[in-house]
Amino acid sequence: MSVGNTFFKTAFSVDNVIFGFDDSLLKVLLIKRAERPFKDQWALPGDLVFPEEHLDDAPKRVLRELTGLENVFLEQVATFGKVDRHPVGRVITIAYYSLVNIAKVHPKPHSFAEEISWHEVSKIQSLAFDHMLIMNKCLQNLKSKVRTQPIGFELLPQKFTLSELQDLYEAVLGKSLDKRNFRKKILSLEVLLDQEEYQQGVAHRPAKLYQFDRLRYEEAKSLGFTFEV
Amino acid sequence: MSVGNTFFKTAFSVDNVIFGFDDSLLKVLLIKRAERPFKDQWALPGDLVFPEEHLDDAPKRVLRELTGLENVFLEQVATFGKVDRHPVGRVITIAYYSLVNIAKVHPKPHSFAEEISWHEVSKIQSLAFDHMLIMNKCLQNLKSKVRTQPIGFELLPQKFTLSELQDLYEAVLGKSLDKRNFRKKILSLEVLLDQEEYQQGVAHRPAKLYQFDRLRYEEAKSLGFTFEV
Repeated sequence: MSVGNTFFKTAFSVDNVIFGFDDSLLKVLLIKRAERPFKDQWALPGDLVFPEEHLDDAPKRVLRELTGLENVFLEQVATFGKVDRHPVGRVITIAYYSLVNIAKVHPKPHSFAEEISWHEVSKIQSLAFDHMLIMNKCLQNLKSKVRTQPIGFELLPQKFTLSELQDLYEAVLGKSLDKRNFRKKILSLEVLLDQEEYQQGVAHRPAKLYQFDRLRYEEAKSLGFTFEV
Repeated sequence: MSVGNTFFKTAFSVDNVIFGFDDSLLKVLLIKRAERPFKDQWALPGDLVFPEEHLDDAPKRVLRELTGLENVFLEQVATFGKVDRHPVGRVITIAYYSLVNIAKVHPKPHSFAEEISWHEVSKIQSLAFDHMLIMNKCLQNLKSKVRTQPIGFELLPQKFTLSELQDLYEAVLGKSLDKRNFRKKILSLEVLLDQEEYQQGVAHRPAKLYQFDRLRYEEAKSLGFTFEV
């Protein structure tokens, strides 16, 4: 049909902002590009979407290829479509972010990447393409969502201390929180299971371990409960 | 380059979910399609994005062509990309929603449309393409956002009564609210300007008119205030 000549000339890609939490720091998984354009620069992992691939399957594929992970938290955030955002042609990109438990990830380079590693989010100065913009948009979304949905737990090991949980919130929100208020608030939500276990192998007095009680949360939610930190 | 043959074959479009509020009902602006596919069916207004058009400019163009409006509330919500969502070829669509003051809109059909009119959201049974899915996703976003951001006022005339404001919230949220609690809560936010004026030409006792105080809201927000209804 006639519109074919004018319109069916675009490619579209996905970009994955994969957040992890380690050493009390919020990190993001970046690749070093092996090819032009932006060769040797750090970039978000991503790929072109195949003609016969459902859009939502593409970020899952990228994630699986780079990290081996499946069934992790993945959310579509926004689509970026400036005319000149890609030097090779018109490429629209759809940004997704994931939250992963960093201990479970053994990243390996794939396709466009010659290197892959975790980078502290607050230290990143520049990225290839419009990837700074994309990363910041996803970070903004995470900051707002982490306060009202129990997604922060995705970034932690199954069992964690209240200090680790507070460190996580402070890293994501980029500000320090009052320890007493934080503990009071989080415990009052009644979605943490006391594991009746303590940390092992730490120099200081071992702290209690907790686990997120997803079942209890889902039940409470269905009755109108709202998570809020 | 070689990827051109494989990947640069997609078109992308925008779809506009334009919400209005009238007669205590939440409405959406639909077009009746003049062309195949889905000829004579109701659909969301939208259009293919031109090769040299910045993505974010496309929904503004569609809105302007159909309603004459500029500078209205417009938000990107999600991108839909199932392989078979469009019968003509691979078309990815990016969904935006707008909130407009229905009294200011004089919609006229344009391009693919042979007819254009407002439809009560809760009465819509089916739409062309995957437009039901798109409309519902935007509605869900509106429902969540209207409680924590002062966007509901976009749907009202500049001066409104508290009853009209409550009707609006009830229409968007799809449930009735307690009158006394609603008034107490909304007035306690201190973002409404008492106009010291009353409704005119009504059969019942005229109610007081209010106006949203955007300046005061922006000031309070910068100091950490959160709007919540």
